[in-house]
Amino acid sequence: MSARYERVALIGLGLIASSMAWAMRRGGLAGEITGYARSAETRDIAREIGLCDRVCDSAAEAVAGADLVVLCVPVGAMGAVAEEIAPALAPGATVSDVGSVKKAVIEAVAPHIPEGVHFVPAHPLAGTEYSGPRAGFAELFDNRWCLVVPAEGSDEAAVSRLEGFWEGLGANVERMDADHHDLVLAVTSHTPHLIAYTMVGVADDLRRVTDSEVIKYSAAGFRDFTRIAASDPTMWRDVFMTNKEATLEILGRFTEELFALQRAIRLGDGAHLHEYFTRTRAIRRGIIEAGQDTAAPDFGRGPKR
Amino acid sequence: MSARYERVALIGLGLIASSMAWAMRRGGLAGEITGYARSAETRDIAREIGLCDRVCDSAAEAVAGADLVVLCVPVGAMGAVAEEIAPALAPGATVSDVGSVKKAVIEAVAPHIPEGVHFVPAHPLAGTEYSGPRAGFAELFDNRWCLVVPAEGSDEAAVSRLEGFWEGLGANVERMDADHHDLVLAVTSHTPHLIAYTMVGVADDLRRVTDSEVIKYSAAGFRDFTRIAASDPTMWRDVFMTNKEATLEILGRFTEELFALQRAIRLGDGAHLHEYFTRTRAIRRGIIEAGQDTAAPDFGRGPKR
Ligand SMILES: NC(=O)c1ccc[n+]([C@@H]2O[C@H](COP(=O)([O-])OP(=O)(O)OC[C@H]3O[C@@H](n4cnc5c(N)ncnc54)[C@H](OP(=O)(O)O)[C@@H]3O)[C@@H](O)[C@H]2O)c1
Ligand SMILES: NC(=O)c1ccc[n+]([C@@H]2O[C@H](COP(=O)([O-])OP(=O)(O)OC[C@H]3O[C@@H](n4cnc5c(N)ncnc54)[C@H](OP(=O)(O)O)[C@@H]3O)[C@@H](O)[C@H]2O)c1
Repeated sequence: MSARYERVALIGLGLIASSMAWAMRRGGLAGEITGYARSAETRDIAREIGLCDRVCDSAAEAVAGADLVVLCVPVGAMGAVAEEIAPALAPGATVSDVGSVKKAVIEAVAPHIPEGVHFVPAHPLAGTEYSGPRAGFAELFDNRWCLVVPAEGSDEAAVSRLEGFWEGLGANVERMDADHHDLVLAVTSHTPHLIAYTMVGVADDLRRVTDSEVIKYSAAGFRDFTRIAASDPTMWRDVFMTNKEATLEILGRFTEELFALQRAIRLGDGAHLHEYFTRTRAIRRGIIEAGQDTAAPDFGRGPKR
Repeated sequence: MSARYERVALIGLGLIASSMAWAMRRGGLAGEITGYARSAETRDIAREIGLCDRVCDSAAEAVAGADLVVLCVPVGAMGAVAEEIAPALAPGATVSDVGSVKKAVIEAVAPHIPEGVHFVPAHPLAGTEYSGPRAGFAELFDNRWCLVVPAEGSDEAAVSRLEGFWEGLGANVERMDADHHDLVLAVTSHTPHLIAYTMVGVADDLRRVTDSEVIKYSAAGFRDFTRIAASDPTMWRDVFMTNKEATLEILGRFTEELFALQRAIRLGDGAHLHEYFTRTRAIRRGIIEAGQDTAAPDFGRGPKR
């Protein structure tokens, strides 16, 4: 069942917040939408495109009287924002967030949440490489997962209401604990992003293979890495700074495996390579069967506005 | 200007050969298309779907009387195939190939080419993660690059005729020398593929993050790696076995950069990460400006049959 709130305050007005605003409108999930962003420029754009019913000039003003407050800022900014809005939060309100890391956000935000306010962290697994208030579109969360990560002692009614809200935004909802969330995301998102950034950086550094050639012939595989590596630098810096432990663990395993393959190449051990490459095909089949991608060439990214 | 041949023989009938066959028909580039594949199964499928005018039961039979012979087998099989067909080649014929590595193919094939036959290696930069005779489609090469890598002392008329043929198949043609080709491809294709295979292998190995979770939440970035890593194991084994030097060189640089980023994560050096992630954005913009991808979500892969 999709759930409605009387007043939803979005703090931060980038890709995720603007997609939430359009999806809330589509689903009739909010009586009023208020919004706040750090810069006057972003607030002006939000007003111009009619993103919220009211764009406020302070976070405190935006959250006043809201029964749902969603923090949509980079993970590293969550603590400071929570501290700033705390005195203005209405009793009985729910505070949530959309951060890509959960343990660090809970540690930073929870201490600022006043008695009588519910804190229910969440993370929609949906995004594009674009950012800012103009990047959002109502369909972003359709058929994507939203992981809800209740903090210890969360109020069950508040948690299920938020789950209903995300279902109303189009997402499939699952609960998970924070540690497990951060490990799963280190494997499925954070480490792949770091690796893509690295490969693009290597290409950029090479002087013998000129930039223009790398770009010209990118369709041979490299192009898919550049798309991943085009995402917002601040968001990703914060992800790696706050999901350090799990990312370093997965990176350690990655390096181990890469060295084994590198050794096989050096020694001419074709059987090892062939066996390895055969094994990875099964994962791909599993993803198509699970409906998380199609055999069609659009990478399952869905429509853009 | 697109060029025509009287009889084109395709040796190997997989993704690339079958795409060439459909594209030759579309462009009227061949008087007759003959074909041969190693297994009776593939030859039967080719007959069933009408891929060639004649599917032959030996490579020698397929190349007899052909004025263009294109070797479309894995890189590691090129030498043996060349040796097999050599006695049956018509004087004045052109032998070409589509292998993803060029130096090793030239070393393996050139010694078998008889006096009076022209050898003009080439490499179309187009593919999908599918393989076999049913995987091809006429549009595969449209607006993609085809690199032509003339061997030393190649006949200029034979080279430009082959270039015209590839233009007729839809491709943009460029000439390049073999060493440079292998380095450029190590950066834009071979190393990215190895890295994608490695990341998928790591995910497959992790028991704490169950398979089903990795698959379920793959849309967060990992999915793009699995697509790359679903390509044919034999083809990629051969690529790494034969483009060893350039791949190991680029891998060395990759590891260096990865360690620097890993260190920045461990030390909490956010400025380093932010600077690095900002730099890689420019490459992405360059690729979109160069028309090698669009901002649209289809990864520029073009239509499939
Ligand atoms: N993009 C994705 O793929 C994705 C997916 C799932 C979750 N997330 C998470 O969603 C959150 C927002 O990401 P996004 O993609 O929407 O980012 P975005 O488009 O870059 O927008 C970020 C917003 O946060 C504001 N902001 C930035 N730094 C701030 C600070 N120090 N204090 C106050 N406000 C600040 C920005 O304000 P100005 O515009 O005024 O600078 C902007 O409105 C992040 O926590 C991210 O981890 C992102
Ligand atoms: N796929 C790509 O993305 C791509 C892009 C550009 C260039 N290339 C190059 O194109 C060539 C063909 O690739 P593809 O994707 O078309 O491969 P594919 O779909 O797997 O087809 C390979 C063909 O070669 C035959 N073959 C395999 N091993 C052989 C051997 N030892 N002796 C004789 N024939 C053999 C196979 O016969 P059976 O079916 O009977 O086994 C099959 O007909 C490779 O050199 C590859 O590097 C590939």
